[in-house]
Amino acid sequence: MSTSSFTPKAAHQLHASVSHPTLRDWLQDGTSIHPSNLVYPIFIVDGEGQKQEIPSLPQQYRWSVDRLGELLEPLVQLGLKAVLLFGVPQNAIKDERGTAADDVLGPVCQGVKYIRTNYPSVLVICDVCLCAYTSHGHCCIFDERHEMDNQKSIDRLAEVAFSYAQAGAQIVAPSDMMDGRIGAIKTRLLSNGYAHVSVMSYAIKFASCFYGPFRDAAKSAPAFGDRKTYQLPPGSRGVALRALERDIQEGADMVMIKPGMPYLDLIRDTAERTTLPVAVYQVSGEFAMLHHAAAAGSFDLKAAVMESLQGFRRAGATIIITYFTPVILEWIRS
Amino acid sequence: MSTSSFTPKAAHQLHASVSHPTLRDWLQDGTSIHPSNLVYPIFIVDGEGQKQEIPSLPQQYRWSVDRLGELLEPLVQLGLKAVLLFGVPQNAIKDERGTAADDVLGPVCQGVKYIRTNYPSVLVICDVCLCAYTSHGHCCIFDERHEMDNQKSIDRLAEVAFSYAQAGAQIVAPSDMMDGRIGAIKTRLLSNGYAHVSVMSYAIKFASCFYGPFRDAAKSAPAFGDRKTYQLPPGSRGVALRALERDIQEGADMVMIKPGMPYLDLIRDTAERTTLPVAVYQVSGEFAMLHHAAAAGSFDLKAAVMESLQGFRRAGATIIITYFTPVILEWIRS
Amino acid sequence: MSTSSFTPKAAHQLHASVSHPTLRDWLQDGTSIHPSNLVYPIFIVDGEGQKQEIPSLPQQYRWSVDRLGELLEPLVQLGLKAVLLFGVPQNAIKDERGTAADDVLGPVCQGVKYIRTNYPSVLVICDVCLCAYTSHGHCCIFDERHEMDNQKSIDRLAEVAFSYAQAGAQIVAPSDMMDGRIGAIKTRLLSNGYAHVSVMSYAIKFASCFYGPFRDAAKSAPAFGDRKTYQLPPGSRGVALRALERDIQEGADMVMIKPGMPYLDLIRDTAERTTLPVAVYQVSGEFAMLHHAAAAGSFDLKAAVMESLQGFRRAGATIIITYFTPVILEWIRS
Amino acid sequence: MSTSSFTPKAAHQLHASVSHPTLRDWLQDGTSIHPSNLVYPIFIVDGEGQKQEIPSLPQQYRWSVDRLGELLEPLVQLGLKAVLLFGVPQNAIKDERGTAADDVLGPVCQGVKYIRTNYPSVLVICDVCLCAYTSHGHCCIFDERHEMDNQKSIDRLAEVAFSYAQAGAQIVAPSDMMDGRIGAIKTRLLSNGYAHVSVMSYAIKFASCFYGPFRDAAKSAPAFGDRKTYQLPPGSRGVALRALERDIQEGADMVMIKPGMPYLDLIRDTAERTTLPVAVYQVSGEFAMLHHAAAAGSFDLKAAVMESLQGFRRAGATIIITYFTPVILEWIRS
Amino acid sequence: MSTSSFTPKAAHQLHASVSHPTLRDWLQDGTSIHPSNLVYPIFIVDGEGQKQEIPSLPQQYRWSVDRLGELLEPLVQLGLKAVLLFGVPQNAIKDERGTAADDVLGPVCQGVKYIRTNYPSVLVICDVCLCAYTSHGHCCIFDERHEMDNQKSIDRLAEVAFSYAQAGAQIVAPSDMMDGRIGAIKTRLLSNGYAHVSVMSYAIKFASCFYGPFRDAAKSAPAFGDRKTYQLPPGSRGVALRALERDIQEGADMVMIKPGMPYLDLIRDTAERTTLPVAVYQVSGEFAMLHHAAAAGSFDLKAAVMESLQGFRRAGATIIITYFTPVILEWIRS
Amino acid sequence: MSTSSFTPKAAHQLHASVSHPTLRDWLQDGTSIHPSNLVYPIFIVDGEGQKQEIPSLPQQYRWSVDRLGELLEPLVQLGLKAVLLFGVPQNAIKDERGTAADDVLGPVCQGVKYIRTNYPSVLVICDVCLCAYTSHGHCCIFDERHEMDNQKSIDRLAEVAFSYAQAGAQIVAPSDMMDGRIGAIKTRLLSNGYAHVSVMSYAIKFASCFYGPFRDAAKSAPAFGDRKTYQLPPGSRGVALRALERDIQEGADMVMIKPGMPYLDLIRDTAERTTLPVAVYQVSGEFAMLHHAAAAGSFDLKAAVMESLQGFRRAGATIIITYFTPVILEWIRS
Ligand SMILES: [Zn+2]
Ligand SMILES: [Zn+2]
Ligand SMILES: [Zn+2]
Ligand SMILES: [Zn+2]
Ligand SMILES: [Zn+2]
Ligand SMILES: [Zn+2]
Repeated sequence: MSTSSFTPKAAHQLHASVSHPTLRDWLQDGTSIHPSNLVYPIFIVDGEGQKQEIPSLPQQYRWSVDRLGELLEPLVQLGLKAVLLFGVPQNAIKDERGTAADDVLGPVCQGVKYIRTNYPSVLVICDVCLCAYTSHGHCCIFDERHEMDNQKSIDRLAEVAFSYAQAGAQIVAPSDMMDGRIGAIKTRLLSNGYAHVSVMSYAIKFASCFYGPFRDAAKSAPAFGDRKTYQLPPGSRGVALRALERDIQEGADMVMIKPGMPYLDLIRDTAERTTLPVAVYQVSGEFAMLHHAAAAGSFDLKAAVMESLQGFRRAGATIIITYFTPVILEWIRS
Repeated sequence: MSTSSFTPKAAHQLHASVSHPTLRDWLQDGTSIHPSNLVYPIFIVDGEGQKQEIPSLPQQYRWSVDRLGELLEPLVQLGLKAVLLFGVPQNAIKDERGTAADDVLGPVCQGVKYIRTNYPSVLVICDVCLCAYTSHGHCCIFDERHEMDNQKSIDRLAEVAFSYAQAGAQIVAPSDMMDGRIGAIKTRLLSNGYAHVSVMSYAIKFASCFYGPFRDAAKSAPAFGDRKTYQLPPGSRGVALRALERDIQEGADMVMIKPGMPYLDLIRDTAERTTLPVAVYQVSGEFAMLHHAAAAGSFDLKAAVMESLQGFRRAGATIIITYFTPVILEWIRS
Repeated sequence: MSTSSFTPKAAHQLHASVSHPTLRDWLQDGTSIHPSNLVYPIFIVDGEGQKQEIPSLPQQYRWSVDRLGELLEPLVQLGLKAVLLFGVPQNAIKDERGTAADDVLGPVCQGVKYIRTNYPSVLVICDVCLCAYTSHGHCCIFDERHEMDNQKSIDRLAEVAFSYAQAGAQIVAPSDMMDGRIGAIKTRLLSNGYAHVSVMSYAIKFASCFYGPFRDAAKSAPAFGDRKTYQLPPGSRGVALRALERDIQEGADMVMIKPGMPYLDLIRDTAERTTLPVAVYQVSGEFAMLHHAAAAGSFDLKAAVMESLQGFRRAGATIIITYFTPVILEWIRS
Repeated sequence: MSTSSFTPKAAHQLHASVSHPTLRDWLQDGTSIHPSNLVYPIFIVDGEGQKQEIPSLPQQYRWSVDRLGELLEPLVQLGLKAVLLFGVPQNAIKDERGTAADDVLGPVCQGVKYIRTNYPSVLVICDVCLCAYTSHGHCCIFDERHEMDNQKSIDRLAEVAFSYAQAGAQIVAPSDMMDGRIGAIKTRLLSNGYAHVSVMSYAIKFASCFYGPFRDAAKSAPAFGDRKTYQLPPGSRGVALRALERDIQEGADMVMIKPGMPYLDLIRDTAERTTLPVAVYQVSGEFAMLHHAAAAGSFDLKAAVMESLQGFRRAGATIIITYFTPVILEWIRS
Repeated sequence: MSTSSFTPKAAHQLHASVSHPTLRDWLQDGTSIHPSNLVYPIFIVDGEGQKQEIPSLPQQYRWSVDRLGELLEPLVQLGLKAVLLFGVPQNAIKDERGTAADDVLGPVCQGVKYIRTNYPSVLVICDVCLCAYTSHGHCCIFDERHEMDNQKSIDRLAEVAFSYAQAGAQIVAPSDMMDGRIGAIKTRLLSNGYAHVSVMSYAIKFASCFYGPFRDAAKSAPAFGDRKTYQLPPGSRGVALRALERDIQEGADMVMIKPGMPYLDLIRDTAERTTLPVAVYQVSGEFAMLHHAAAAGSFDLKAAVMESLQGFRRAGATIIITYFTPVILEWIRS
Repeated sequence: MSTSSFTPKAAHQLHASVSHPTLRDWLQDGTSIHPSNLVYPIFIVDGEGQKQEIPSLPQQYRWSVDRLGELLEPLVQLGLKAVLLFGVPQNAIKDERGTAADDVLGPVCQGVKYIRTNYPSVLVICDVCLCAYTSHGHCCIFDERHEMDNQKSIDRLAEVAFSYAQAGAQIVAPSDMMDGRIGAIKTRLLSNGYAHVSVMSYAIKFASCFYGPFRDAAKSAPAFGDRKTYQLPPGSRGVALRALERDIQEGADMVMIKPGMPYLDLIRDTAERTTLPVAVYQVSGEFAMLHHAAAAGSFDLKAAVMESLQGFRRAGATIIITYFTPVILEWIRS
């Protein structure tokens, strides 16, 4: 047997040059987590005195506006910079067009006002959709043939988004996936003097099975059918990139990929295609996977969550929306 | 309020042009799963009559060579094309240099021979490392100062890989992350007339917390310290891409990213940087997350696993190494 | 003389790793030819009982609708999936605006209906242009100053395309190169409820000398001037890519490069810039070059044609429009 | 029917801005043909007084060294800058290792000396291969088992290249496709003080059917088998790009793609991957296609040849090797 | 001490292959300076008999139309191809909307006519802005709240640009940085039959400190505030690339980066993102730096200026606007 | 005149979304200047008690080791993290091979020791070259024919670099541009157990006219000829990128571009081609231009310097070597 030896060339000896703090400063670039990288999603119910457990999302709650302070006070102390509000109407009447969505006395509009008034340093983002307010539970309006009416849907979404902007939201974030809703919302905002309100597009939102627990939290499972006709098929990078391009062209100010970990490659694709800030939503199914596997002893929760966050940063995301925000704020403080 | 309407332009109406089978043939491209995309990892123990449960990897077992037929017969019927063998010595004596690794009577060498003889259509890949055979449980050899001796380590790894090739392995897959082991192995193979044996490099292998259950399966936790000094830090895309480039330059025939889902962005990066086939290892922690969250009712197992596989294909991988191979072969048959 | 020897490094010994069928499955990717990759161009004349030889295109014919079955029956048996129809009016009156182009009793409209009825599995694409129907033989309408009237031209082209869609065409393929005709056609289709009809754009169509024989087949040489003022100059990659980008933005569902072999680099450029399916037209001059050189003994026809097709696939095309379709279907069957 | 009109946006009206010569200067960039872009391939026979017709390459001849002046004198007047010499031994003895290839009295060595002496402004490139000089007609040396001996082959090729350099060649151009021959030749040149001699690699040379007529010209058809085991398979972009990368890493000074038109996409790929000058060989089959189709009236020869050259420039080539060089020099003068 | 020697591999010995003029022709590509690459900026004052020194721009003058011949005659002899005109009104009345900007008897309109009549080979570009003509010295019109009125500003800029086109300008070059002014100008030109007039966009114009001397030359310092609210912040590559993309989409025929040397990276970025001709403005502060450092003996003026021009060409610019044009024309002639 | 108005689309209204601090955090990314981004070049003379003015570099001095504390004390207080040492021997004997370069009692070796001992937080980089120590003033050793002896030169440079490493330098930075000096230095360091010392390559160093004042500071003008035969020609992006690639392959740990502002495009090119930290040297001619033009009133010094630094960061550099370091440390503190 020939045993001639092989020595790797210098360029391939990767362990060099990490022996001094300034060297490490040079090597490390932009994957650390600051509070400004985090957005906390909050479920707001109507009514009073509510702090409801969500069985499928351990340690997460639905809050009524009057108790939001309990939640926010310690988080703002820890550096919380931004929240994403979901309305969960429990008393409102649902109808074909989601009339309750922009009720000025409803949980979202009231929640925005409460936070802007009491926690002015917090940036308020409102999820914009109809599914929590429609009688059929879909994100759109149907026409008389029971087919999706795209034009009516985006007109209604623009109306809702504008109401949230009037209530004080600094960013509106449409999650519905109708064709043209970014253009519709921007047009409404610009033509009414709300140019200073930004739109964060759920640009690449897949028809994923990882949304299960969220539906429980937001009580938003559709009454019939599913959302595969307007969310993206998981295998279709091509259509996803066209959806991204569309939303950029229609005026999105930030673009989101959702879910996160199962679609990290699209974050990289997105970061290479736009100079807009890139956001990622670590969805409820990801939260559940990390939680349950850690509970079963497969790995340490903190290690796994932080590794997942680093992955988002490494892939190119600036903004991370995650239910783990409260514990992360604690972890990075210490 | 101005309510001037907005209509998305034609290029932005994405639901068009999927109305005929030939049109869909044109649109869909390369994210389906065939048996040739799958590689099944098998743990082989020494001894006889063994089929040992692995608590942390439900439904996976350690097999002795004499019972491998039980495992393989039905899988080959279902179309199994390739396996990745891990030796788990339980009776062998462990020492400083992992002498038992290439014992011709050990589980790997015997396993290779058994499969090549009885299932000639199956491509046999052998994981190459020392950690299961060293007394200290690390993937390398240490020098007298107790520091990693890179040159001795890669010489030894080349020796082990060559033994597996002699036993009949068609691919050797070094998982150790020493600097230069691809070059050392290729040099050994080429200079001894084994040019037809391929090397699948664990090119981008991160120091991840998602390997927990595997250590239980392979009994490979190190006796002291950890592997952070030779596996890649999760945040370092730059160093990962340099490791990839190194292994390609040293002669790798295929390159692997490990873990899979938490590093999907690196699969995309890799696919854009090489024309070699790209492999991905869906590691034990991913298996655990999907298993436990499905068991907790967060989502449907089949839907989530298939979505994860589509993600690998979408990101650019051809070869998927997964513990779910048996059930996937059943799912895609029906 | 120093004769120190040089041995190529492992990564540069390219003949490795092709020794097992699964290995070759991994290496080969997407350059094979399936029937669904082929589109057959058919010239349809008005009148009855016609099967006219085309001197400059050996083995190709002009057919009247009543004899189309003769042509199609054996091809559909061989797997023919798609056709591209060109009307060649011989009795119709030509005028300034090409009125005959969308005559519902003309060869194109009748041909579409015949094929949709009798060969429902065949996808029907209609070339859309005016030059075969205008008295001046140009692809546009002129204004009173005898200059090209772009707006009137694209309005008329949209009208013709819509007529073909009404007749049953699943794809309309405008070949005229007027500015904005994709937008005009998509607007017409969308606003009249024909969103399910696709537009295949002749996006990159050069003013090439390789169209000679086609003009004989389609009887479409202009009566004066040439088409250099609206087709692309062969040296101008920049303008070609801008034309491509325009057609994508205006809503094209597939994009074509024409001619094929002399512009293979633009196929690669296109494939890297869009996720739409890419088509290529192997034009009459290419057909003639391959035919005549093979006839002169320079090379074997089958080898040369298949090498040319592989080139299209390698460069990034999914859809190949070629006069060789009948013989290719035979070749790939055996 | 809705007939709402569509007007293309300003950016999509491509006919603007070509109305002034300085504007056109700005738009046109680097696709014109200068004499320095052209290399003329010349076949040199041994013996005297020879000017032999080549039936398969109309208007091309094989010349003995004593009559080269007849050929070169008018071409140098027209601006000829570079030639590529092929030896066609008719009296030499062929053997297993192609001994005659670097006979200092053979046609190549003598031809180089003649041209360097008499036409000092002409850059002399020598094709380096064995196939015209081996008894078996292959480009390599075989071992005792009748298998290709790569190491012996590249050592011999380095020897031949060095002889041509000693005779005065400024560039040597190995066309054999053995693994490592660029490294072997550069090593030989550098270690013997010939650092000033460049190597033009036939980096991407496909096993194409378009070489037919050349074999007649160079009398180089192999006695048995074919060259598919060392030339590249037409569909394999991946392997082609690895061959390119290898030759660049081994020290090529220029890189060639061969054939030209059927592989234009690889020229584009190459130009985007290297800053070395890119050459293309318009091979004999391309010459034949253009010649015979023009002779059959399919198109005008000059128009088609110039369109093919523009294609090479557009795709990224600087250096064009073509049998049409003499007529092109005339065309571009006028 | 180990002193084992290292020899660089062949590919890394870069000094090869420059030993013959044809070789150097192949290596050098597109960084030489021709007169057609140069545009000379000219300041035109109203009044008669003027040739005013500009203290901050040594050797540059403000000219009245009647003396332009003195300046242009020798430059046209040296090959001058294009000029960029700036109006410097000294007698005109300034108001809120810059009424004097398009006075048909003003310096710009009269200057255009003079040059088109007397030097027909010279391409005339007119800078389009309001700041030299507004009472407040800003590039825009303000609304009643003293905020920038973007819509009124771009309407007015379109009006001015159209006047210059009517006077004979072949290119109009808006330098104001209002949102949408390219679209506004192109719309005005196209809808009035001036499709043949090109628009050169100041697409990437930073709020730079290097404009100091120009303000003296053009007498354009604003009366209050600065231009940071509409010019780009120096650190913002992202916003710069979005501004570029916007202007391309709105129909720009050429795009400019300004300043030049301090933003060379953006020239490279631009050249990789568009196929439009790229222009660069070597601004007054760059002129000053080169002039004063050369005067202080830091380096030779000609060497430094030519190195700066080569940099523009190397980075991807075709068109260079520079105050050094007269001396460069002399340098490149000799 | 048609005056139809144009309104820019939403995506083109760039002034949105900067109204909240968290929004601006998201938009701004990585162009700020921290002390760890700065490296201060220091000229060290032999002898004692020296603080010599450098006429061509106002406010810069040559220091003897015993007075270095005067310079460093206040800078370290301001946060200085790294220095780059140049030796300026005034008493040493110069010879053919630059013997004095690594005199252990010379200014560089003594300077390193002084700083490592007294300012341990400061990272010490040593410029490695021969020109200040050779009798001929060139960066290399000549052979008996008076031609550059590349092999002897890189062996000597490796010797010098190793001496500096032994003296305590954490980074050695060869500025000579000989072929293969990175490989030679890394080989020397690795084979002698100095793997922890990094090499910062002057990878892209142009033969620029902007080095004038430095030669005065370092007293390094060559006695005859110039450095154009080993530094890069300003127009040659291709050769520059090959030099970069070479140094990366030979094992550079960081790569430098020099000069800075006139070659910003190469910083962008470099950042896109490597994951190593990128350094830039703002050379003496740049310092002079900024200094003299500011002195002449063309612009404000601080504004111009900071704009130049932002340019380096925007283009992709992490490490900035600049003579302005002392004032910048003051500016960014306040
Ligand atoms: Zn919804
Ligand atoms: Zn291991
Ligand atoms: Zn036509
Ligand atoms: Zn040969
Ligand atoms: Zn202005
Ligand atoms: Zn030097």
